[in-house]
Amino acid sequence: MNQDGQNQDGPSQGGQDEPWVSELQGRCPEWLRGEGPAADVVLSSRVRLARNLAGMAFTPRASQDDSELVMTRVRAQLEQLGTDRLSIDLRGCPKERGRLLVERQLISAALLAGRQRQAKGDANQDPRGVVTWLGDERLAVMINEEDHIRIQSLRSGFDLPSALRSADEIDDAIEATLDYAFHPRLGYLTACPTNVGTGARFSVMLHLPALAITGDLERAKRAAHDMALAVRGFYGEGTESAGDFFQLSNQTTLGRSEGMLLDEMALEIVPQIIEYERESRRKLMNTQRVLLEDRVHRALGTARSARLLSSEEAMKLLGLIRLGVVLRVIDDVALPTVHGLMLAVQPAHLSLAHGGELESGDRRAARATLMRDRMKSKGAG
Amino acid sequence: MNQDGQNQDGPSQGGQDEPWVSELQGRCPEWLRGEGPAADVVLSSRVRLARNLAGMAFTPRASQDDSELVMTRVRAQLEQLGTDRLSIDLRGCPKERGRLLVERQLISAALLAGRQRQAKGDANQDPRGVVTWLGDERLAVMINEEDHIRIQSLRSGFDLPSALRSADEIDDAIEATLDYAFHPRLGYLTACPTNVGTGARFSVMLHLPALAITGDLERAKRAAHDMALAVRGFYGEGTESAGDFFQLSNQTTLGRSEGMLLDEMALEIVPQIIEYERESRRKLMNTQRVLLEDRVHRALGTARSARLLSSEEAMKLLGLIRLGVVLRVIDDVALPTVHGLMLAVQPAHLSLAHGGELESGDRRAARATLMRDRMKSKGAG
Repeated sequence: MNQDGQNQDGPSQGGQDEPWVSELQGRCPEWLRGEGPAADVVLSSRVRLARNLAGMAFTPRASQDDSELVMTRVRAQLEQLGTDRLSIDLRGCPKERGRLLVERQLISAALLAGRQRQAKGDANQDPRGVVTWLGDERLAVMINEEDHIRIQSLRSGFDLPSALRSADEIDDAIEATLDYAFHPRLGYLTACPTNVGTGARFSVMLHLPALAITGDLERAKRAAHDMALAVRGFYGEGTESAGDFFQLSNQTTLGRSEGMLLDEMALEIVPQIIEYERESRRKLMNTQRVLLEDRVHRALGTARSARLLSSEEAMKLLGLIRLGVVLRVIDDVALPTVHGLMLAVQPAHLSLAHGGELESGDRRAARATLMRDRMKSKGAG
Repeated sequence: MNQDGQNQDGPSQGGQDEPWVSELQGRCPEWLRGEGPAADVVLSSRVRLARNLAGMAFTPRASQDDSELVMTRVRAQLEQLGTDRLSIDLRGCPKERGRLLVERQLISAALLAGRQRQAKGDANQDPRGVVTWLGDERLAVMINEEDHIRIQSLRSGFDLPSALRSADEIDDAIEATLDYAFHPRLGYLTACPTNVGTGARFSVMLHLPALAITGDLERAKRAAHDMALAVRGFYGEGTESAGDFFQLSNQTTLGRSEGMLLDEMALEIVPQIIEYERESRRKLMNTQRVLLEDRVHRALGTARSARLLSSEEAMKLLGLIRLGVVLRVIDDVALPTVHGLMLAVQPAHLSLAHGGELESGDRRAARATLMRDRMKSKGAG
């Protein structure tokens, strides 16, 4: 199935008339399946490559025509790749659908807002889009974000090497016909100097609830900072860390090879934090089991009872329930249920499932209803 | 069955070797049955009469021999009344059993501590005791509290007149053989001037959760203060109002007849507050039903899930659950279950049910276990 969601559907808000909207909603992306190495602590691994086309101004300085040309060329090239391809022009894409893509981490909030080009005008009309593959949502290519091309590759669990391999394949496929801006000494050129070089950013989404309970979380975060890693929440830059989910990423790529960056993350820093969290979990299970059970079961009890839930509280509850499921303190909830809810409780997911925009109060009620329904005891335990 | 719990059982702590201990624990006292007038808002009504024997120093100034004599005379008189009588000498009564009586509101914490006589010595050895009737715990007579005799009469719901009738009967029965300290102009003489006159205090235990939710509680409390009423928590003087339970009592009795005091409480002040709370409940049900359901079901969810519970949190949860049951927002919990737990979650009740003193951490675990067990869904709803 080849789908194209671009610009054919007028200004109607939030409807489910595009098949990809309901298709995305009905499914848990591969990176949230709770599989792969160290899946007890690492939710997902992500590789992002920043690329720009040779001989054209970077997005912030580009003219509308330049950006249009970038968009046309990159899409044309990507649309030859694979089946089940979803290519979306974000101009004219109804707001709730765009937000759905942000919530599923297929595009950045910045790309949706359209603030990339510095030239004046209706930012929303700036040429920008995304190409992804519906099968598993492991790959997405943003066009005309801060860089002309941003390839994103996701994997569940702690598996940066596989994520990098997929990203490299797309990278090669694009480079087969399009020239990248590349400097023999500096490497790939990017709009922001911190990305110059490999243009690669490696991230892992960690779940660190035991460190949060034992009070050692701040120490772990400081250690990550000291190793020049950025620490963000579940929804990326500037978001709170509700649920004790943390995204760790390398900050600069200049002067180091992809291999060096990868090794640092995959072999040194992240394994240490994983071990630190596991040790805390063991300590909790051995010496404060009742305290742990109390926290976890209260969260499940609230998830099964509340009639109004904010997005932040929902994530908090899901984080604790996830800990309980992983440690087998909770035995009647499945991990994919928890992970699926991490997306489904978000505003655009809720609105689109409901069939139209929801007021904030109604959204809190709809979120609580969804949570109760999906968290219903399966009769075990 | 005539039982006498005095002083025969040595210093052993907390055991259940006395039949009355397990008998009290296994039962909900009449005043917590949730019956009677206005039982949706009024938990119970209480009348207390303060009396002193003529020609003997008030307790604070009494010698040990005087207090001994008061104790002997009053007990002798009371022990002729009714069957199922429980007469306890608090000297030598194991601490946990004494606390059980306090938690059931059969004696005051001050009487248990033995701080009444101002003479130096081992306060715990001061002669003091209580006589009650096991059948329903509606009557209790404390001996050598601040006054020689304090008669307490309890009723479930809003029924001060019945409570007064029962208190008067005991009062008459004592006066049949013992002379009270009485002044023709002042009335009954008491250790504290605020009780001089009728020696009567009328109290009602109100449940005001809707006023607490709507934020109008402070206004209601100020109004009660302005009408010279004392406002206390569930456990009397100096206790917090966890669960939104409030005890309202008249403060002075001098210069007013029993009938005047009774009418003021029974016909004016309390009915107004009852109506105020009912109005708030209606408002919540009509305009903020989801908010109400959220609060109430969260409380029930936590009660059914927590593994550790403090006494204060337990009362808070029970208060909200009680509101849910009364308003039929919760349909699978019975009111007597809620009321029974209000006693059963208290420290001495927990320790004695456990068969021995509990550490604070173990007590919180035992409280949570008890709460979960009794709150189990009956499958309704």
